[in-house]
Parts: sequence; C-alpha cells; structure tokens
Amino acid sequence: MITPKIVVGGTVAIDNVITPIEKRENLLGGSAAYAAISASIFSKKAQLVGIIGEDFPKEYLELFESKSISVEGLEVSDQKTFTWTGKYLDNMNDRETLDVAINVLENWSVNVPEAMQESELVVLANMAPANQLQLLSQMKASKRYVIADTMDLWIDIAKEELEEVFTKIDLLVLNDSEAKQYTGAYSSVKAGELLLEKGLNAVIIKHGEFGSTLFYTQGNGSVQLFKCPAWPLSELVDPTGAGDSFLGGLAGTLAKMGKVHPTLTDLKEGMVNGTLAASFTCESFSTESLQEVSFEQIKQRREEFWALCQWNA
Amino acid sequence: MITPKIVVGGTVAIDNVITPIEKRENLLGGSAAYAAISASIFSKKAQLVGIIGEDFPKEYLELFESKSISVEGLEVSDQKTFTWTGKYLDNMNDRETLDVAINVLENWSVNVPEAMQESELVVLANMAPANQLQLLSQMKASKRYVIADTMDLWIDIAKEELEEVFTKIDLLVLNDSEAKQYTGAYSSVKAGELLLEKGLNAVIIKHGEFGSTLFYTQGNGSVQLFKCPAWPLSELVDPTGAGDSFLGGLAGTLAKMGKVHPTLTDLKEGMVNGTLAASFTCESFSTESLQEVSFEQIKQRREEFWALCQWNA
Repeated sequence: MITPKIVVGGTVAIDNVITPIEKRENLLGGSAAYAAISASIFSKKAQLVGIIGEDFPKEYLELFESKSISVEGLEVSDQKTFTWTGKYLDNMNDRETLDVAINVLENWSVNVPEAMQESELVVLANMAPANQLQLLSQMKASKRYVIADTMDLWIDIAKEELEEVFTKIDLLVLNDSEAKQYTGAYSSVKAGELLLEKGLNAVIIKHGEFGSTLFYTQGNGSVQLFKCPAWPLSELVDPTGAGDSFLGGLAGTLAKMGKVHPTLTDLKEGMVNGTLAASFTCESFSTESLQEVSFEQIKQRREEFWALCQWNA
Repeated sequence: MITPKIVVGGTVAIDNVITPIEKRENLLGGSAAYAAISASIFSKKAQLVGIIGEDFPKEYLELFESKSISVEGLEVSDQKTFTWTGKYLDNMNDRETLDVAINVLENWSVNVPEAMQESELVVLANMAPANQLQLLSQMKASKRYVIADTMDLWIDIAKEELEEVFTKIDLLVLNDSEAKQYTGAYSSVKAGELLLEKGLNAVIIKHGEFGSTLFYTQGNGSVQLFKCPAWPLSELVDPTGAGDSFLGGLAGTLAKMGKVHPTLTDLKEGMVNGTLAASFTCESFSTESLQEVSFEQIKQRREEFWALCQWNA
C-alpha cells in the first residue's frame, strides 16, 4: 500500500464573520485552509498550494506546520491576503457577502513546487477555474485522483473554464443550489444524473444540513447513489468552511486508506469522515474546532452517527 | 399478536392541481384519503373518518372499498366536498394555494362510528386541531397509539388547540418549516429537541426531498435520533399528498407488525415504508400511482433504498 500525498490548492484567506450572535475579525479562512486542516486529521501528507500576502498572520502559518501541512507551495506576495467579510442571517443558513478584497488573487498564476508534482491525490478546492486548470497542468503522477469543488460565481462568470475542469477530474463536489444552477434541473437527483452525463465518473452534491448524495458510475456503466446524512447539529456557531472541511476530510481519508483509485465503498468512507469533520467546523468560528479534532474524536462521533443512520433491511 | 385496527381521520377532498407541465382537475385529494390508501398497502384494517359532499365522485368511494378501506365513518353532507386548488412553481417544491373551498368542513363535528372507537391505532391526519380533538375524545381503546400531523395554517390560527392535541398524542409528524415556525428554532435539530421538551415522546420532522428525522425519547430519558433519507426521485410529477402518504405508510406498517407500543426499531420500519409509499405518490397526480402499489413493490424498492443508505461502521 502506498501512502498517497495530497496537494490541496485553493484560497487561503482572512475572514471577517458576523453571525446573529457574534462578530469576529481576522480569522483564518479560505477553501484550501479548511480543506488542508481537515485532511490533516486523517493524513500527515497534506500540502497547501495557494497565495498569501505579507500581512498573513504568522500564527496561522504555525498552525499549518503544527498539523504537518507543508506550506512550501504557499506563495507569499507583497500584496495583501485575500479577505472575505460575510454575514449570516438569522436562520444561519443564508449568508450575505459584505465585502471581498481579491488582493493577491488578482493576477495569481499557480505554481506547484516540483517536489509536489508527483502527488497522487489532487484537491482543487474552490478557486477560479483558471487557477484550478493551472494547478492541474503541473501535476505529473501517472496514477492520480483529482477532486474539484466550485461555487456559484464561477458557474456565472467562468462556465467555459469550469467545463474544461470537469473534463480533467475524477470527482466533482458542489452544493445543491450550484448543481441545479449549472444543470437547470429542479431536483438534485436530476442534477446529479445530468452532471454524470457530462462525462464525470462521480459527483457529490452537498445539501448543507441535510447531508450529501454521491452519484457514482460503476464499472458496468450503471449509476449507484449513496445518501450520507449530516451530523445533527442543534446549535450552529459558524458554518463557514463546512463544505471545504468535507472535501478535505474526504481526501484525507482516501490518503489514509491508500486509495488512488477509490471504489464506491472508499468514497462512502471518505464522505462519512468528511461529514463528521465538517460538523466540528460548524461548532465554532473559523478552524477553531476543526484544528483541535483528533482522529479518535472522529471515530467516536462516527459510532453515534452510525447508530442514527441504521435500519434493518 | 393482535392486528390493530387503524382509524384515519382527516380531510377527503377534490383537488385541482397545476404543475409546470400539466393541469388536472377533479382529482381525489385530502390528507385522510392519501393516508388511508397508503396504510392499505400494509394493512387491510384502515377505516376512514371524514366528511364529503353529495358531489363526491362515486369512483373514489369505490376505490376506497377496493382497498378494503372502511368508509362507514365517512359522513355524507348535502353541501359540497372540500376543494383545494393549487399550483406548483417551476422548482416543484414551492406551491401556491389558488383557492380553498371549505364547504363541508365549515361546521363539521367529527363523529366516529361506535364500531371503530376501540381501534388501537389513531391517525390524526392534517385537519383543524378542533376536529382532531373531537375525534380523539371518541376513541376508547385502553391501549392505543396516536399519531398526528398538522400544517402551518393551524400553527398560525389555532395554536392553543394544537397544543392541546400535542398533550394527547404519542407521535407528532410535521414539516421542517412548520417545526421551525412553531418552535422559533433555526435548525430542525433544535426544533425537534424543543418539541420533545413540550412533553411529546416522539417527533418526526419531514424534510421533503431530503427525507425525515425521528426524535425519540428512550426509556432512560435520553433522546435517540434516526435519519431516514428520501427515495431519490429524478422526476416529480405531483408531490401533493407525499407527507400524508408517509404518515399512512408508517401507521399501516405498525398495524402490519401488530405494534400498538412501537419501539424505536418499529418506528424506523414505519418511516422507511412511509418514505417509499410517498415516493410512489410523487410519481403521478393524486393517488394514481399510490393506489396501484403492492406491498411487493414496496419491498422491491426497499432493497434498492437499503443499498443506497449503507456504509460500513
């Protein structure tokens, strides 16, 4: 068994988050930050690829290092770090973006350090599809597995590049509303089926508090679904990064199992762990809970999760 | 083992339904109609309690009888049958009520035939809480299990009577949005917990295309959850009555198993069958699919459903 290395490309950001209860500033954020920390619960082979500014807090770099996350591929620009300011509405599900300062991302051209180019697991966390394509073009492992996430913005303004991404990946992960927006379907089941028809082998549609659904094309061409519920959270502190944590937990689990060509069972395993990692993310601001979670805690919550999903055939 | 009899009280209606694709008039509708037909897939001991007008199509009465559903408790008034006209929006999830003609329901006082008053399973399908209380006051079995559904309208205009219903039932079934509306909680998990704190022993919150969650107070006072996904439907023809079909399938399953004091496992069994019955309801207008479904077909779909819910502990 090999222990695959993971490259996690995406944004590394400073977030300012307002919830109905609290306002917090200068938080660690960004798709790749969440995904890499989540992956590190399962695998010590995660490597960040992204760009930060000189203003990026040193403590966050130390946090990555404490999690054995390589920051060699984290370029430091003389501009400011990408910053997102958002506000959650009373229902904690809808949010408004109050401000986005693109900063370092403006003219970023992704550069994957040579030592990372042979990594077998490639996570294209949410970022511009052009950046996802740049990253992917530098990856050289003959056996590799590529997972990509995206967001509504790119479906709106970069659909063509996004479609090129879709032709080069093994697994697409996206939100319910994004899947419907992209395909024009009104049901997420139809949206998943239409995405597979685009040539994707596997698609995961995330339903927020209702879990996620995998659409997986089996060897014989038939499609098998897997419905993964969400961990029931009574109180949500800050859902920012939950989807990225899901993605990272999934990839970290594949790495831990040594799976570069995951089966349906392997992907289920990854989804369950990703779901649990995401549940910790929602329990506090930023990565504050996620970064404290041990694999043992995931295993413990997993036992309870198992109990609340079971029924007799 | 006893074979419990089921009383299903609620509305029996004429529906006019407009979807983005088709417009259909003079359909069989009403909460009790769907629930009783769904229950009849599992148990031949279902008995309707409701009121219709002289205009009610004879073919629908024959349909009930062909399903061994007793219509002895279906009062015939000289007014017109309750009629609902609704329109589904493009996403097939949101709907508008275009017209409601209360008709026979206006001054209805529920009358349960004496022969039915000893029935062990009582299903209070969606109707005015005052009618639910009238029905329940006539039920006399010393061992019985009472399941009630409700809707947003009653939370708005009859909250006090609804709260009285809650004190007299064993299991409450309601929609996500209704649970949040009633409790003021923003998460359905919190809403379920708050409903149990009201003294209910068990609550099922329905999430539409995302399934349902059971909140169940165990003997030792601890709360156990069960997450039941929905059957994945690629195309929705008409979701009217899906929730009522879920309710009836659940009750019919308890009757089939002879369970008047259902355990957690029994309720899971009921939820799974209710989910599958509801999936057939969505596949055509009115009860047109549901009324053709055999227990064998439920079992068959259940096997596929099982496969798409499974993961390894």
